[in-house]
Amino acid sequence: MNGMGRADGQIGKAGHRLALSACSLLFASISSPACAQSGALDLADTGDTAWILAASVLAFAATLPGFVLFACGQARGRNQITTLYQGMGAVLASTLAWAIAGYTLAFGHATGGWLGAGNAWMLREFGNLRAGSSIPESGFALFQSTSALLPVAILVAFRSGRMNTAWLMLFAPLWSLVAYAPLAHAIWGGGWISEKFLPIDWNGGIVIGVGVGVSGLVLALMGADREPAPSPLSPLGLLLALLGATLFLVGRIAASGGQALTGNDDAAAAMLATLLGAAAGTMTWLLLGRATNCPPGPLSLARGILCGLACIAPAAGYVSPGGAIVIGAFGTTVSYSLARTLQARTRLGDAGVLASVFAGGGACGSLLVVPFIQPALGGTGHPSGTSLIDQLIGQAGTLALATIWVAATTLVLATMVSLVRPMRPAQECVDQGLDIATPEGF
Amino acid sequence: MNGMGRADGQIGKAGHRLALSACSLLFASISSPACAQSGALDLADTGDTAWILAASVLAFAATLPGFVLFACGQARGRNQITTLYQGMGAVLASTLAWAIAGYTLAFGHATGGWLGAGNAWMLREFGNLRAGSSIPESGFALFQSTSALLPVAILVAFRSGRMNTAWLMLFAPLWSLVAYAPLAHAIWGGGWISEKFLPIDWNGGIVIGVGVGVSGLVLALMGADREPAPSPLSPLGLLLALLGATLFLVGRIAASGGQALTGNDDAAAAMLATLLGAAAGTMTWLLLGRATNCPPGPLSLARGILCGLACIAPAAGYVSPGGAIVIGAFGTTVSYSLARTLQARTRLGDAGVLASVFAGGGACGSLLVVPFIQPALGGTGHPSGTSLIDQLIGQAGTLALATIWVAATTLVLATMVSLVRPMRPAQECVDQGLDIATPEGF
Amino acid sequence: MNGMGRADGQIGKAGHRLALSACSLLFASISSPACAQSGALDLADTGDTAWILAASVLAFAATLPGFVLFACGQARGRNQITTLYQGMGAVLASTLAWAIAGYTLAFGHATGGWLGAGNAWMLREFGNLRAGSSIPESGFALFQSTSALLPVAILVAFRSGRMNTAWLMLFAPLWSLVAYAPLAHAIWGGGWISEKFLPIDWNGGIVIGVGVGVSGLVLALMGADREPAPSPLSPLGLLLALLGATLFLVGRIAASGGQALTGNDDAAAAMLATLLGAAAGTMTWLLLGRATNCPPGPLSLARGILCGLACIAPAAGYVSPGGAIVIGAFGTTVSYSLARTLQARTRLGDAGVLASVFAGGGACGSLLVVPFIQPALGGTGHPSGTSLIDQLIGQAGTLALATIWVAATTLVLATMVSLVRPMRPAQECVDQGLDIATPEGF
Repeated sequence: MNGMGRADGQIGKAGHRLALSACSLLFASISSPACAQSGALDLADTGDTAWILAASVLAFAATLPGFVLFACGQARGRNQITTLYQGMGAVLASTLAWAIAGYTLAFGHATGGWLGAGNAWMLREFGNLRAGSSIPESGFALFQSTSALLPVAILVAFRSGRMNTAWLMLFAPLWSLVAYAPLAHAIWGGGWISEKFLPIDWNGGIVIGVGVGVSGLVLALMGADREPAPSPLSPLGLLLALLGATLFLVGRIAASGGQALTGNDDAAAAMLATLLGAAAGTMTWLLLGRATNCPPGPLSLARGILCGLACIAPAAGYVSPGGAIVIGAFGTTVSYSLARTLQARTRLGDAGVLASVFAGGGACGSLLVVPFIQPALGGTGHPSGTSLIDQLIGQAGTLALATIWVAATTLVLATMVSLVRPMRPAQECVDQGLDIATPEGF
Repeated sequence: MNGMGRADGQIGKAGHRLALSACSLLFASISSPACAQSGALDLADTGDTAWILAASVLAFAATLPGFVLFACGQARGRNQITTLYQGMGAVLASTLAWAIAGYTLAFGHATGGWLGAGNAWMLREFGNLRAGSSIPESGFALFQSTSALLPVAILVAFRSGRMNTAWLMLFAPLWSLVAYAPLAHAIWGGGWISEKFLPIDWNGGIVIGVGVGVSGLVLALMGADREPAPSPLSPLGLLLALLGATLFLVGRIAASGGQALTGNDDAAAAMLATLLGAAAGTMTWLLLGRATNCPPGPLSLARGILCGLACIAPAAGYVSPGGAIVIGAFGTTVSYSLARTLQARTRLGDAGVLASVFAGGGACGSLLVVPFIQPALGGTGHPSGTSLIDQLIGQAGTLALATIWVAATTLVLATMVSLVRPMRPAQECVDQGLDIATPEGF
Repeated sequence: MNGMGRADGQIGKAGHRLALSACSLLFASISSPACAQSGALDLADTGDTAWILAASVLAFAATLPGFVLFACGQARGRNQITTLYQGMGAVLASTLAWAIAGYTLAFGHATGGWLGAGNAWMLREFGNLRAGSSIPESGFALFQSTSALLPVAILVAFRSGRMNTAWLMLFAPLWSLVAYAPLAHAIWGGGWISEKFLPIDWNGGIVIGVGVGVSGLVLALMGADREPAPSPLSPLGLLLALLGATLFLVGRIAASGGQALTGNDDAAAAMLATLLGAAAGTMTWLLLGRATNCPPGPLSLARGILCGLACIAPAAGYVSPGGAIVIGAFGTTVSYSLARTLQARTRLGDAGVLASVFAGGGACGSLLVVPFIQPALGGTGHPSGTSLIDQLIGQAGTLALATIWVAATTLVLATMVSLVRPMRPAQECVDQGLDIATPEGF
């Protein structure tokens, strides 16, 4: 250290101190034990842990390659490869941000406020068991990380072909820290919303669905530009959209079971409900298209799958199989109407449909779960024992707060990052398609 | 109810009663508890349950996107996207039918007849444990549902490009109720065939392989038309066929392990046998092609994988690794000869190959399992303690009954559905390719 | 037997004896019990077994379709389908070889030499439990088989478009027996390297990464020819490369957790480390490209994922999350420099990059694990209790021996197989692209 100190005069004090701090921070960051359990009793249940590990991997497959492939497939014009590249890059960049700070902000010790304590930064100091479960905290962190990466992938789909990669690579990790992590803490991690409103959200109807739907809508609306007129999708695009939606379905079924944090009957019931909600949503979307003289097609099928999954996500672990079908069908009807209205009255194009699917579906599901959680309708009953009306008010309040939070943070963050790198590519690049215009800048 | 009753005069009595019945049925259907175990001891083993949950998700991936992608890839002419769309739509529609009635018809309380009791309609009244296992019945239902969706996806491949989507969307769910569910009950669910013939069928060589192979052949033969002359597959088609076959392989290995209903050495042995049977089948198919001056290629490799899997399916859990290789190789030899014969003597085209692969492979495997189950050849021994000859007669009888059953029900059902919607698209649509002719009617 | 013996005169003695031996060998090979545990206590833990089964299936997906899809995508010219076909065929052929002899050569009873005992040929005589674990040996064999198939798939990528299928189908299974199995035994199976050098290799940085990187380099260098000048990849190629790399990432995360052989906190920590190492490697590869005026793109992203995975593979189970990020970033920096140097100074093209990624990344990771395994840096400590310097020497010695071993065996084996079938296709086939030149000989 002394030898390095003497060189200060040459290379500048500020730079040097920065380097020193970085080194010591780096040292601290990696000095956490890889296995915090050494020397302590291993109390975790191997069966529950086995399931959470498998569910984490399968849930990750819903993000990469699942959703990113869907986003690639539905990208208009010559933007498919760029969209795929941007989605993967944004997810992997956010992985690092989430490990360094996101996990502890969302799932560190609860203090009743907006953010978790910093005890688990850089995934340090994992407890033997995640409190309230029978799995080790490292398994819990793995599972939550795969959930946290999904919204990042979805965000990319809202502005495909109208976004600079450099801007996105800065924005995405920051968004997952500034917008997503506090929301996840407030609802799932023991933060103040969860204490005040006792919200119900099994697998991210609000945290992920509404969060990413509203954020994406804000991104799509930013700037004077609008999406180019929709050109028809190529056969390859349709194929990728269907393949991506199906992988997404497979992964989300596993994620829904993983939220039980245990390999038991609750996980199986949540997975059945997720499958049935998705199937009901898909059939509803296709039938509504046929009924309203707007013939369905492959893209409708893919959107129906996404919409059914968004509707059932908040409810999957709490409702009966029949309830799941009704929630999927009813929520999809509302989302479909919203999507058609947005398409007719705005120039949002695909972004409007995505917002209807994720924010609309997630919001419908998180309201519909309240009646269907009642034991009379086959549900598991309110976890917190509140009345139906109180629960409905709590859900609505949570929805409103979540919407305001992610809209505000996304707007501020996107604007700030735009000061460093432009969000929007040059007009001629957008017109050509980014695959052609910036092949090297992918 | 009274207030609604008074409106009868206006809207018509029949319609109203239907609505009332629908409402009360709907209420009943969703009022089952999401978690039947509440208040009872949770006796399930978390490890076994963890494995059945993971195996279910992976087995589902063999259907969607696995097999559907293969069907899309091998579709001739301009029918790839339509085939993909039809496969996914048919599977998701059947998911709902299976949940409402199929599961209980196949796996409800056994009464020794053709159908299970109706105790679990709409997946209600799940027991704590599936009888005879250490997993909850919801986990069992999840696993069986993913198995039940596979034949629906396979059926679509038999008539790709010659089938109306509307017809299929009605036919597929009904087929899974009328043809598949009774067969599954009779063989797997404790029905009369299983009592009378004591058949051996680990992972669906008869129930799925023969069932879907014969059904598909009936579908392919219906109507005066035949498949158009085979056009060469595009590189993209070959790629999708290979990708789909590989995903199918991955998922079927997991499904084979899942049939053990427990995460132990039996599951691992079944998975090894499945992998080896598939590898032996593939190599055999390729070598037979080379030996008979009919050069193999990517499509042969994909067909070899499917054929090896069909051969080993009935035997996977009962035979030694060496036995699995012999069954895969020998069964594939028979299926390959059958496929070549059908190609030379009929105009069935790809449908004839698929029928050879699934029905031929499944039948070979379910006969070959009898010698190889003997402990002298490394097998686990007859579960029921019958002699080799009795077992062979039982297998043959089961095969004959299964063939007659699915052929008859498929023929009747397909004809009846054709009265509602035409099965066959207009000739000019078939000639153009459905991707071009009916893009909106996908 | 007598009846057959009398026919000797007609069909030739030698041929007959061969047939007899084959029959008796066949009989012996299949007479192993499918379930060795019958009659003994089942001591395996269902949770640990459930995890190893799920991890095996997911790890297999990293090979098929994962890596093979990447290899197909990065194939230049008209060689994509051939590469896909060759990769799948080579893997399935090696599956049989591995089952017959490979497993027992690598993981049979350790005798302290180069090869395991032959006790488990044809996967016979599996113990109730794999020694030192709580899973049945059949589960262990399943998991190790999926690991053993990965290097075969990777090898194909080194010579895509310059290799005869017939040659490969002979070479690949032999390579996995002659080159890979002894290396796996020496390092993982209790052979002499593991006794002498106490090497650390969690998930195949040396056994798989260095093994296949060096072998592939030898293959790429063989013959006077060099790879054709790199043509730009088609959009479909880029898409497949990205999709394949992502599936590879998903599967390798599971494989890394599976190496713990138990569903606990160690598995979860290894999976987190693998994800973070891959993310760090990807970001580093992209940033280095940007920093050195060699603009990154989709292929860079895919290579970054592979490189990060190769770097973290030997270390995943031993280091902290922060350590994993540093290893991924630092190792990728070295591999990237190596790749650029090879591209500038040699005509190896893509094969040089692959060698840098796998051999370079694996070697870096297996050296970097030594400092980062120290408890002071958050590691788990040396398993064997040796000092840092001794461990570094041990790792370097293992690397040197592994390099020499696979280089020598690959060179000898490839030359010998070339005497039976030519390795290199005719020049005009290479120029046209194998998809065009030998569609039937795929």
